[in-house]
Amino acid sequence: MDFSCPIPIAQYPKILLAHGGGGKLMHQLIEQMFAPTFDAPATQHDSIVLTPPPGAIALTTDSYVINPLFFPGGDIGSLAVYGTVNDLAMSGARPLYLTVGFILEEGLPMETLWRVVQSMRQAADRCGVKIVTGDTKVVDRGKGDGIFINTAGVGVVEHSQAIAPPSVRPGDVLIVNGDLGRHGIAIMAVREGLEFETEIESDSAPAIREVSALLDAGIEIHCLRDLTRGGLASALNEIASAAAVDIAIDERSIPIREDVQAACEILGFDPLYVANEGRFVAFVPEEFAQKTLDILQRNDPRSRAIGRVTATGKGLVTMQSKIGASRIVDVLSGEQLPRIC
Amino acid sequence: MDFSCPIPIAQYPKILLAHGGGGKLMHQLIEQMFAPTFDAPATQHDSIVLTPPPGAIALTTDSYVINPLFFPGGDIGSLAVYGTVNDLAMSGARPLYLTVGFILEEGLPMETLWRVVQSMRQAADRCGVKIVTGDTKVVDRGKGDGIFINTAGVGVVEHSQAIAPPSVRPGDVLIVNGDLGRHGIAIMAVREGLEFETEIESDSAPAIREVSALLDAGIEIHCLRDLTRGGLASALNEIASAAAVDIAIDERSIPIREDVQAACEILGFDPLYVANEGRFVAFVPEEFAQKTLDILQRNDPRSRAIGRVTATGKGLVTMQSKIGASRIVDVLSGEQLPRIC
Repeated sequence: MDFSCPIPIAQYPKILLAHGGGGKLMHQLIEQMFAPTFDAPATQHDSIVLTPPPGAIALTTDSYVINPLFFPGGDIGSLAVYGTVNDLAMSGARPLYLTVGFILEEGLPMETLWRVVQSMRQAADRCGVKIVTGDTKVVDRGKGDGIFINTAGVGVVEHSQAIAPPSVRPGDVLIVNGDLGRHGIAIMAVREGLEFETEIESDSAPAIREVSALLDAGIEIHCLRDLTRGGLASALNEIASAAAVDIAIDERSIPIREDVQAACEILGFDPLYVANEGRFVAFVPEEFAQKTLDILQRNDPRSRAIGRVTATGKGLVTMQSKIGASRIVDVLSGEQLPRIC
Repeated sequence: MDFSCPIPIAQYPKILLAHGGGGKLMHQLIEQMFAPTFDAPATQHDSIVLTPPPGAIALTTDSYVINPLFFPGGDIGSLAVYGTVNDLAMSGARPLYLTVGFILEEGLPMETLWRVVQSMRQAADRCGVKIVTGDTKVVDRGKGDGIFINTAGVGVVEHSQAIAPPSVRPGDVLIVNGDLGRHGIAIMAVREGLEFETEIESDSAPAIREVSALLDAGIEIHCLRDLTRGGLASALNEIASAAAVDIAIDERSIPIREDVQAACEILGFDPLYVANEGRFVAFVPEEFAQKTLDILQRNDPRSRAIGRVTATGKGLVTMQSKIGASRIVDVLSGEQLPRIC
């Protein structure tokens, strides 16, 4: 890939309203930056016609408004690819295509857009997905915030499992694929100008390889959920409620790095509610738990079994604390970390 | 449909950052407003699994940042449905599913969101498409502008025609499905507080019924293009360039209402460059031109044949003016009407 910006920066140092106006500047952006970097066809048309492999398709969408645009371990571009790809993977789908919609603020440095676009391309390559069509809008200065990105994703479901909350059963073991809380703390540290002894990098990453390894190994998967906005606590509450089961987790088994734990204490955050971007929880029957753990630990040795589904119920999530007391882990009320994704 | 807002307005008169935070307020919005109004399943999951009819799929995305949110003839919600549905129709696809991504500004009146959501539902019903999954982000006050909406669309292609610029041939006749320029002028009139003798309403509407009528009648369609940002002039330049042909149009045959023409003169706009939202141009071989016109005129009697593809070439678009002179119709440089869609 040529790493110099394909738009002449001296002539167009910043995004203008005309870059979203349907005229010459918009075409320049599409033809010189987007089309060659992504997998969009050279011939522009209103939509693209594709032939996915036979089978059911999975469909998802997410907008990304993260602030700041660049952070340790990633940027809004890679996040917009991994986040949507992971949403497809959580249905057990193999991600195929992404669409991308940019909402740019007038005055955005052209170089910033180019960095984000390159990052999206690299992230898409890493995931084996194609960015096949897109759209660009420009809003006047002060009516946006640099870059907002929407990606919608299409994947194909190549197995017959129903990986979704209604499949969750009492006895299922909960396994997380690594340590929690790094994404949220990494963002917060940049925003607040905090420095820790070691830099905390976001966990932002694709989870597709791990999910397909589980499927290939014949694991019976009842549910997968990525631990993004609202963190582990919100994900478990959503699933418990949707599946009408109670869940019990054990605080001692939840993998959280010491520096993340310390940062949470300084900032007054509960790590159970902090957003991740490459972490998920898998619900699997007891007999598949060890095999699941083995597979996930090959990718990240901090993967752990953290609890189980105790009974059919009203959606109660409880946690046995380090000192042995049991407490209810409720849904977050209010806002802990705005614009984390 | 119950027309009172399902969120208690007295308690939550405005959108808060927490409505995008993954906690209780976000769930309330999804469970009480979005899920019952749209076709999203009651059980929330990261993506939705669907089984479209066999065949190739068409995929598209568009973000909508129109200002103002409500205008004569439509609003950002109906626009976000029709615009994306029409992009699918322009590939000759039958639209099936939409995803929706909201980027809301903190402080947006809850009632405004509810009006937009209802409008999307009604528009989706009119088009026979399902809004199957979505996402909501909230940005801090002053970092957005009320509501931005992204919709991505999936359609199925149920015929074997290649409806796209490379199919365009010399001799093809260009037919538009109604009068031009109303959407752009309607928006401009609201923004500038202009009043005309008659209210000019946006042409915003779905074009799927007309496209399927053409396909059902066995019309050989070489290309379809909706005349949105940049208007007729930009659409023709894009197609002429992509197909490597020259196009000649006749100003006298281009249908523009007198009040729209007058408003363009007052505002200093060239109606050829003004955005429409339900208008398209069809490229059909000469032998199908009359039948195409008959079908389109049944829906809108102002449909007209406006020109033809003259030769293979370098993408030159020329127009015979009302007084007989010929001029080049170039791509727009600069910005005529920002945030028109």
